Amino acid sequence: MKRLDTRDAGFEAAFRALLDEARETTAKVDAAVAGIIADVRARGDAALLELTARFDRWTPASAAALRVTAAEMDVAVAAIPEERRAALELAAKRIEKFHRAQMPRDVELSEPGIVTGLRWGALDAVGLYVPGGKAAYPSSVLMNALPARVAGVSRIAMCVPTPDGVLNPLVLAAARLAGVTEVFRVGGAQAVAALAWGTDGIAPVDRIVGPGNAYVAEAKRQVFGRVGIDSIAGPSEVVVIADGSNDPRHVALDLLAQAEHDEAAQSILVTDDAGFADDVAAAVERALRTLPRAMIAGASWARHGALVVVRDWEEAAELTNRLAPEHLQIMVADPRALFGRIRHAGAAFLGRWCPEAIGDYVAGPNHVLPTGRTARFASGLSVFDFLKRTTWVEASEQGLGAIGPAAVTLAEAEGLDAHGLSVAVRLAHNP
Amino acid sequence: MKRLDTRDAGFEAAFRALLDEARETTAKVDAAVAGIIADVRARGDAALLELTARFDRWTPASAAALRVTAAEMDVAVAAIPEERRAALELAAKRIEKFHRAQMPRDVELSEPGIVTGLRWGALDAVGLYVPGGKAAYPSSVLMNALPARVAGVSRIAMCVPTPDGVLNPLVLAAARLAGVTEVFRVGGAQAVAALAWGTDGIAPVDRIVGPGNAYVAEAKRQVFGRVGIDSIAGPSEVVVIADGSNDPRHVALDLLAQAEHDEAAQSILVTDDAGFADDVAAAVERALRTLPRAMIAGASWARHGALVVVRDWEEAAELTNRLAPEHLQIMVADPRALFGRIRHAGAAFLGRWCPEAIGDYVAGPNHVLPTGRTARFASGLSVFDFLKRTTWVEASEQGLGAIGPAAVTLAEAEGLDAHGLSVAVRLAHNP
Repeated sequence: MKRLDTRDAGFEAAFRALLDEARETTAKVDAAVAGIIADVRARGDAALLELTARFDRWTPASAAALRVTAAEMDVAVAAIPEERRAALELAAKRIEKFHRAQMPRDVELSEPGIVTGLRWGALDAVGLYVPGGKAAYPSSVLMNALPARVAGVSRIAMCVPTPDGVLNPLVLAAARLAGVTEVFRVGGAQAVAALAWGTDGIAPVDRIVGPGNAYVAEAKRQVFGRVGIDSIAGPSEVVVIADGSNDPRHVALDLLAQAEHDEAAQSILVTDDAGFADDVAAAVERALRTLPRAMIAGASWARHGALVVVRDWEEAAELTNRLAPEHLQIMVADPRALFGRIRHAGAAFLGRWCPEAIGDYVAGPNHVLPTGRTARFASGLSVFDFLKRTTWVEASEQGLGAIGPAAVTLAEAEGLDAHGLSVAVRLAHNP
Repeated sequence: MKRLDTRDAGFEAAFRALLDEARETTAKVDAAVAGIIADVRARGDAALLELTARFDRWTPASAAALRVTAAEMDVAVAAIPEERRAALELAAKRIEKFHRAQMPRDVELSEPGIVTGLRWGALDAVGLYVPGGKAAYPSSVLMNALPARVAGVSRIAMCVPTPDGVLNPLVLAAARLAGVTEVFRVGGAQAVAALAWGTDGIAPVDRIVGPGNAYVAEAKRQVFGRVGIDSIAGPSEVVVIADGSNDPRHVALDLLAQAEHDEAAQSILVTDDAGFADDVAAAVERALRTLPRAMIAGASWARHGALVVVRDWEEAAELTNRLAPEHLQIMVADPRALFGRIRHAGAAFLGRWCPEAIGDYVAGPNHVLPTGRTARFASGLSVFDFLKRTTWVEASEQGLGAIGPAAVTLAEAEGLDAHGLSVAVRLAHNP
């Protein structure tokens, strides 16, 4: 863990090093992925069966066996303890409500002879990739599928690998709650290839979202253009801005909640109280003694963690804007005022009773967020990822008469004669 | 030019071939571009000066000379004929108005103890690439820069190559009208590298937009992640749905207005009147005899043009949705009704007096649109390309008490203990 103080002479250099810290390790899998995609394009379901046997260590009886049946869903969902089912339902309800509130309105501007408009429409079909095994998170199924359903997408096809044939019941329950229309036991680059190009058993989609390993990320990169994709998520990160009135243990657990995701995750405390920074550091060490995922969280904290002591909240806001963190907690006396100075953050959590983890599950906003300083220009997942716009113009002969001559002038200036003629030939009919 | 009829036995195969037609030619410039980017990162302005001398055949006196001064802008703008200046101003005014109407509202949802919200914010800085030489289109400067300005972007840096040192005055006038804050005489991959990584003379931006050649497109691909980019545009295309009551010459010029952009452009007529299709084909041939860009337009029409005869407008809508064209003209008796059946198109033009070319210049909606069937999931440029969202949650102790337990349950189900503890430790304080 690093310790920085804005009053130190070397602060700017140390902070820049923090900003430039490389946390991603990108495996070179381009060629392997290109081969898998070509195979699925050429041989369809037959390739899916072979690749599933090879990578997931189970052999589907036929292409039809790749699809999870409604009966299988029923059995899985019935096996879930009531408390978990209720928690999932609360989460789904809140996420759906928040995303419904985001839905945009169409635009229509009328003037004599010319109407212009912008119409929102949903994508026809979306593919949702869900990692298998230990990293199968039902909360991610809700966060990826519900915005699509709220946007009005009619087909939501989910692909999830089932290593050794084992399905995660909670993931299936989340899929059912979130309105997923099809579930396939296929993973890796082959799942992305099937969703993008289609096979006899899996119809192609228009956009693929959801997290995955290096193969999945590279496959999404390679099919981009054929279909839309979401951004490739990097390791998770949090900045906690906290004053000395907080309980150091609370803040320590907030930092460790990010750190436990991944050794490449990053947790940063920004405080105006050097003594509080010490207390938090000590509380982190104490918590690591008993935390089940202490190996991961400890490595993340040691390599990428930081305590930054600032003179005031103005400095805190400035540094946070440079970090543009995925998650931001603001635990000060007036969190809204400080939030007002933040320009770049994926999601913010205001107050002492608002740990980031409630945003991962039940608060309502999406937990798929921009990482690695991309909050400067990117946003979390939302209904906008599943909508697109068609703009339109309607003109009468009079309307064209009013604005057409300017179009002819500009077309001529740009040397595009047919453009100009297509307008001018109609103007000639004007009185 | 191909001719298809939905009543023919081979129609489906022929239409599929039309859908899959490869129109893009992608040059292999990855390595050259990677070298240029590395050079600009390592040597900054010195690299820009050398690369400009090599590729644009003029030698800037110093890094400062790369920047177009206010005085140079004045001289250029003063040289523009009054008619062109007025046309640019009309276009800018209408584009600005349409994009202002798109601006979204923030969201705030209050319930006891918990408030959730979504806040829109502008990007800090945007880079606008403008091609040089003959393809320097002032209309594209307006279309790219105005949405950024309307969104509230404070820094809009434009890079435009000036082959042999020559600046296009109309491009400068458009830049000034659109609120571009800085103009640099730099082009190619080196301009993209400078905008993404920054040099002493060019501060880095958060997102780069604007069209360019293969080098520029590849450079945008390579800096993606460091900064945001817009989508890489393919060749232009139009579908015109027209009944037999139209003037064939109008429709022929609409088809040729797309075709004259590029030999890879595609123009498709969809009509329910086979005789009208013949008339349009004849009118295209006649127009090609006198059109200045007949070499380009004729090649596009011969290779990629198509006449599709359908039984009715239901079929026309269905085929159009499969084509998901960048531009769509609807020239039938009730264009709004038919537009209501269209799910996938970048921009639509309704009625007999609404040639697509008015959308290229003065109608108001953006002319930067999704090509190559990507309108299934992508949209035209808009204020949304220059805005991002921060979601937020504010919770009181009571609010956390209401939703916290469900978060703990789900965190435990996912095996993320610190997540659960960060909530549970605060719940322990509840009465």
